[in-house]
Amino acid sequence: MPVTATNSPPRLADLVMTRCDELAACSETPDCLTRRFLTTPMCDVHAHLRGWMEAAGLATRVDDAGNLVGRRESPGASQTLLIGSHLDTVPGGGRYDGVLGVLIGLAVAESLGDGELPFHLDVVGFSEEEGVRYSKPYLGSAAVAGVFQPEWLDRCDETGVPLREAISVFGLDPAKIAAAAYASDEVIGYVEPHLEQGPVLERADVPVGIVSGIVGQSRLRLRFVGEAGHAGTTPMAGRRDALVAAAAFVTGVRNATVSTEGLRATVGQLAVTPGAPNVIAERVDLSLDVRHANDAVRERAVDQIITSGRRIAEAERCRFEIVEKTAQGAVVVDESLTRSLTEAVADAGHEPIRLPSGAGHDAVIMAQRFPVAMLFVRHPGGVSHHPDERVDRDDVGVAIEVLTQFVRRVAGRVASDSAPVSSAR
Amino acid sequence: MPVTATNSPPRLADLVMTRCDELAACSETPDCLTRRFLTTPMCDVHAHLRGWMEAAGLATRVDDAGNLVGRRESPGASQTLLIGSHLDTVPGGGRYDGVLGVLIGLAVAESLGDGELPFHLDVVGFSEEEGVRYSKPYLGSAAVAGVFQPEWLDRCDETGVPLREAISVFGLDPAKIAAAAYASDEVIGYVEPHLEQGPVLERADVPVGIVSGIVGQSRLRLRFVGEAGHAGTTPMAGRRDALVAAAAFVTGVRNATVSTEGLRATVGQLAVTPGAPNVIAERVDLSLDVRHANDAVRERAVDQIITSGRRIAEAERCRFEIVEKTAQGAVVVDESLTRSLTEAVADAGHEPIRLPSGAGHDAVIMAQRFPVAMLFVRHPGGVSHHPDERVDRDDVGVAIEVLTQFVRRVAGRVASDSAPVSSAR
Repeated sequence: MPVTATNSPPRLADLVMTRCDELAACSETPDCLTRRFLTTPMCDVHAHLRGWMEAAGLATRVDDAGNLVGRRESPGASQTLLIGSHLDTVPGGGRYDGVLGVLIGLAVAESLGDGELPFHLDVVGFSEEEGVRYSKPYLGSAAVAGVFQPEWLDRCDETGVPLREAISVFGLDPAKIAAAAYASDEVIGYVEPHLEQGPVLERADVPVGIVSGIVGQSRLRLRFVGEAGHAGTTPMAGRRDALVAAAAFVTGVRNATVSTEGLRATVGQLAVTPGAPNVIAERVDLSLDVRHANDAVRERAVDQIITSGRRIAEAERCRFEIVEKTAQGAVVVDESLTRSLTEAVADAGHEPIRLPSGAGHDAVIMAQRFPVAMLFVRHPGGVSHHPDERVDRDDVGVAIEVLTQFVRRVAGRVASDSAPVSSAR
Repeated sequence: MPVTATNSPPRLADLVMTRCDELAACSETPDCLTRRFLTTPMCDVHAHLRGWMEAAGLATRVDDAGNLVGRRESPGASQTLLIGSHLDTVPGGGRYDGVLGVLIGLAVAESLGDGELPFHLDVVGFSEEEGVRYSKPYLGSAAVAGVFQPEWLDRCDETGVPLREAISVFGLDPAKIAAAAYASDEVIGYVEPHLEQGPVLERADVPVGIVSGIVGQSRLRLRFVGEAGHAGTTPMAGRRDALVAAAAFVTGVRNATVSTEGLRATVGQLAVTPGAPNVIAERVDLSLDVRHANDAVRERAVDQIITSGRRIAEAERCRFEIVEKTAQGAVVVDESLTRSLTEAVADAGHEPIRLPSGAGHDAVIMAQRFPVAMLFVRHPGGVSHHPDERVDRDDVGVAIEVLTQFVRRVAGRVASDSAPVSSAR
């Protein structure tokens, strides 16, 4: 199938926009978009998407972790290039986060026409990325990457339904999740198109950007413990106010990080105990989220912040506790795939801007086993996880064009890599 | 009845301590002390206290707001001096807050012996001061002062029981609450002994102190509104983080007030929306409690704090809102009663320290209609509204001695005030 009016990138971008609208109607909640792991609306999404995939000539299947895969088969090929993203949403989410990447993947398959490729192209709609229903993100991509842990099946959602049961109710077999995994040597790579969820491309005035890596992340739960006291009778000077300490800490977190390029540090959660207007705070529990593309920079920032917390606690005669500290190192994208992506952006006549991803994505998990690359699409307003999430049709068209060209470039590279072997036969 | 070994202040102090322990067993919760307005444990407290009062020769009654009153009658007297405090507790409260004042009142009646007074002495155990069950404090003293508002009867507790029904269930008549009020000209005054709930007397090393006034109080509910954003993708510089603004505000509240003598300013409640570790705070709601014995000082402090809130919000590109602002002026204690109390402390051989009350008490409401005075008892550790609340038996003995002497001094003053009238007969 050659490029015609019906499968040109602008026409396919229109289709992607319409399809995003159509899938946004598949929601657990009537007033906003909520679609968690293996809920009934996810079943509706599969029905729509399966129909579109099959109409485009893809062979579809749903694996036992609930991932929907549509394969553009290449007769005789032994390897696969995966393209896609996730189909679930946060509660009250937007219609593009995740879904856009899957539909762009499908549009790329449609845009490629009939030309033969030296690999299968699998368009993947992951069942779960947001971690909402089972407080555990990346369930879908973990299965595909072969890192799904069987004990996760015992986790329960907030109504007490075990993950295992949710899978069965959806008509799948939790005992067969391991079969969802691709072998490492079978996969050429995974490329994920995604909304930027940030302002960088908008500020640079470019439609798409090449992800240079996914930032590493430290997550901490911290606590300041002071002494409760009566707000009216306890003199200011004698107080050990945990909230006064926590406030100085929050200010310190911002001041310590604001001048380091690419560093992000956020206190998004803060709870005061006992939390009464007339009682001095005895305890403050707070979260700290620190991210940077360079693990050493991030770790140094975390150390500095902890030191400042200790110093503040001492000054306010409070105790400072690190309740929990977890970290995930930065994800390195595949050099070769990313070079092909960069060239494809240039082919399309756009400046190939590289930027780190500040958010986690299915690519984080896929990178544990496979080469990965990511293409960000400009995000007007940058508002994500919200009904106001937007994307421009023209930018979607560019993404389809770029990724179609990317697939052709990868195909060319694979063909030339295997050429000597062929000629030796 | 002359002062004997059985009604000497030290012996009565022992009795007060034992009685406090006994009443602490009357609780809604088995593991800690919780006794809210007109609950079953309050009925048990009445049974105990009524027995002790009647054994001491007092005539008891329960008014229709649930206040227990024991009268030491003076035949022919037309006026009454009231002494007491409240019988309810906060959830998980201490055994002395409130109860101690009622039991000291009873001990004073016992200590006075048979000597005739020119007034009745009413020992009052108010039914409600903490405002826990109906989110409305001072229900008992409001009835006695004649300021109980009939519409309060429609308020419901957290299980949906209207105040009106709670009164009926307790065997009382909500239609007769107005009859609980004393006429203004009938009352010589109200004196309230109470735990200090603060560290001043302990630091000054004195057993009791004379309350110079009850501080005025401003209560505000404030809000900072910024913009939610992804913690990983939103650069630090572009943020409008409501928690960063609120943190600067909390620091500012402390810094603006710490150097003004007697001023207290507390942020005890602070809630972050949406409150997720990976989302920049969109909104922070917080409480502000400001107190000072001088209304002008308090009002100036509130104005300064609000101005600083506006300035901080502007710097952080957030919005600052005053959601609610209420205030109660400082309570002036009665000069004559307070002089008698001061003299009584000196009579007992102690330095008469005067200190403001930073907390509200039944005396706040009683002062709306009657002359009031308050005696604070030293509070070791200063921990109140907590099972660790303590008081020293010897200090209780001093309080009984001082208040017995206070009653005699007031009696002497009343007698001398009315002497010309008597002699003219």
